[in-house]
Order: sequence, then C-alpha cells, then structure tokens
Amino acid sequence: MSVLKKIYHLGYAVEDLDVATRFYETHFGVSPSEPEEVEEQGIRAVMFPVGESMIELVEPTRPDSPVGKFIEKRGQGFHHVAFQVEDLRAALRDLKADGVELIDEEPRIGAGGYRMAFLHPQGAFGVLTELVELPKSG
Amino acid sequence: MSVLKKIYHLGYAVEDLDVATRFYETHFGVSPSEPEEVEEQGIRAVMFPVGESMIELVEPTRPDSPVGKFIEKRGQGFHHVAFQVEDLRAALRDLKADGVELIDEEPRIGAGGYRMAFLHPQGAFGVLTELVELPKSG
Repeated sequence: MSVLKKIYHLGYAVEDLDVATRFYETHFGVSPSEPEEVEEQGIRAVMFPVGESMIELVEPTRPDSPVGKFIEKRGQGFHHVAFQVEDLRAALRDLKADGVELIDEEPRIGAGGYRMAFLHPQGAFGVLTELVELPKSG
Repeated sequence: MSVLKKIYHLGYAVEDLDVATRFYETHFGVSPSEPEEVEEQGIRAVMFPVGESMIELVEPTRPDSPVGKFIEKRGQGFHHVAFQVEDLRAALRDLKADGVELIDEEPRIGAGGYRMAFLHPQGAFGVLTELVELPKSG
C-alpha cells in the first residue's frame, strides 16, 4: 500500500492555452509558467500553483495527439489527476497484484524528470489517474 | 480578483460507492468518512483527505438526480473541482462583470455549511468549477 500524500497536479485539456491562462491569471491571481512545447507529445502546456498542488493547462498542437483526440471525443475539460506517493514501484506492484488495470506497469520518467505512471481510467472509476514519486530531498 | 488558496476538493461520480471507497482505502491508505446520504440531491457520498485537499466520492441514489444523469451521459469519473477563495462574493462579482458564465451568481450554503457557488463549465473551459469560502477562524 502506498499512501496518497497530496494532489500533485490536475491536468486540464484546453482548446486555447493563451485564453485559458489569461482567465486564471486575471480572475484568480495565479502565476503561470511560460508556455512549454513538448513536440513529442504534441502539446503546449502552462502550469501554475494552487496551494500545495498545481494546475496544468494543456493545449494540443496537433489534432492526432492524445490530447487532441481527447478534446475531439470529449470536449475540453478535466483530463487527469496526479497524486504524489512515497513509493511508486510498491504502489504499482500492489495494484497489479490486485488486478487493477494499469497503463504503466513500471515507473517511467515524466516531463519534470520525476518518476510517474498512469493507472487506466477503467481501474480508477473513470478518472485517468497518475501517480508520481518525487526525489527524496536532502 | 480572488486568489485560489487551495484545491478544496475533487468530486468523483461513481457507480458503486462502496467499491470505490474500498479501492482507495485498500490501495492508498485513506480514511474515508461514513457514507452520508443527501436525499434532496439524490446522492450518497464519502470524503477522505489527500494532503490539504479532499476527494469526494458521490454515487447517485436515483438515475434522475443530477449525478445520475451525469453518469448516464458521460460515464463515471471526474465530476467537479472546488477551489477555496478568500472572498467568494467579490470573486463572483468580478467574474460576472467580465461575462463569465455562472451557475450561482450569489453564494449559497453548501453541504458542509460553508458558502459556495458553481461556475458554469462553459465559463471554465469545460471543467465544472466550484468556489468555496470557509468561515474565518479565530
């Protein structure tokens, strides 16, 4: 068992990154990062902190990217949640042993350089759920 | 402008509250509340803390309740996010002045006794977004 330490981020799929960023900046005083393009994933993304968590706004740069297809099918909106866990490998082993459907059975390295893995939405009651393990500090 | 202080909760619509609760309890060591039935809203709900936030699992008790209709249309999954703000009335006034579509133009009293209001998902890039103002402590 691996305890959920906090909500690490929420990922929103948006049609227009600049409009969405301006909305949160203007109305809610958030401090968004500079937009970052990840060519390989076909996205442009901005992050901003909300309390101990972050919101990640993600715009597809191509309609055939995973986020592009998501928007085509479901419309823009909530895309995924990421929870921080202490021991990602143990969490995945335990989930797999219990027959929970996983996208990643082993940790992989995410955009921020940390270890992460996705549970399949089927295995988490329709919510695309990411688990992240942050480097031990100190 | 009203700064987002933290993610107050995430609301998940689930088909079977007991199964979903057991999943988070077993795999992630969370401490769920006793299920609470809100007859008027046609729901049964459980909450558990994750860091400074909470996850709210909501099961419809009737198919014609708002959450029942949501699941029929979209399937189970993420339903809404609630952010804590300092001054809810000011936030709503500002959003309305800027033409953002709101479900509640004035704060109302939510289940936990705190002031809350929903933005229309159209006004928040497809994410059903709740703002909550907690009582001043001390």
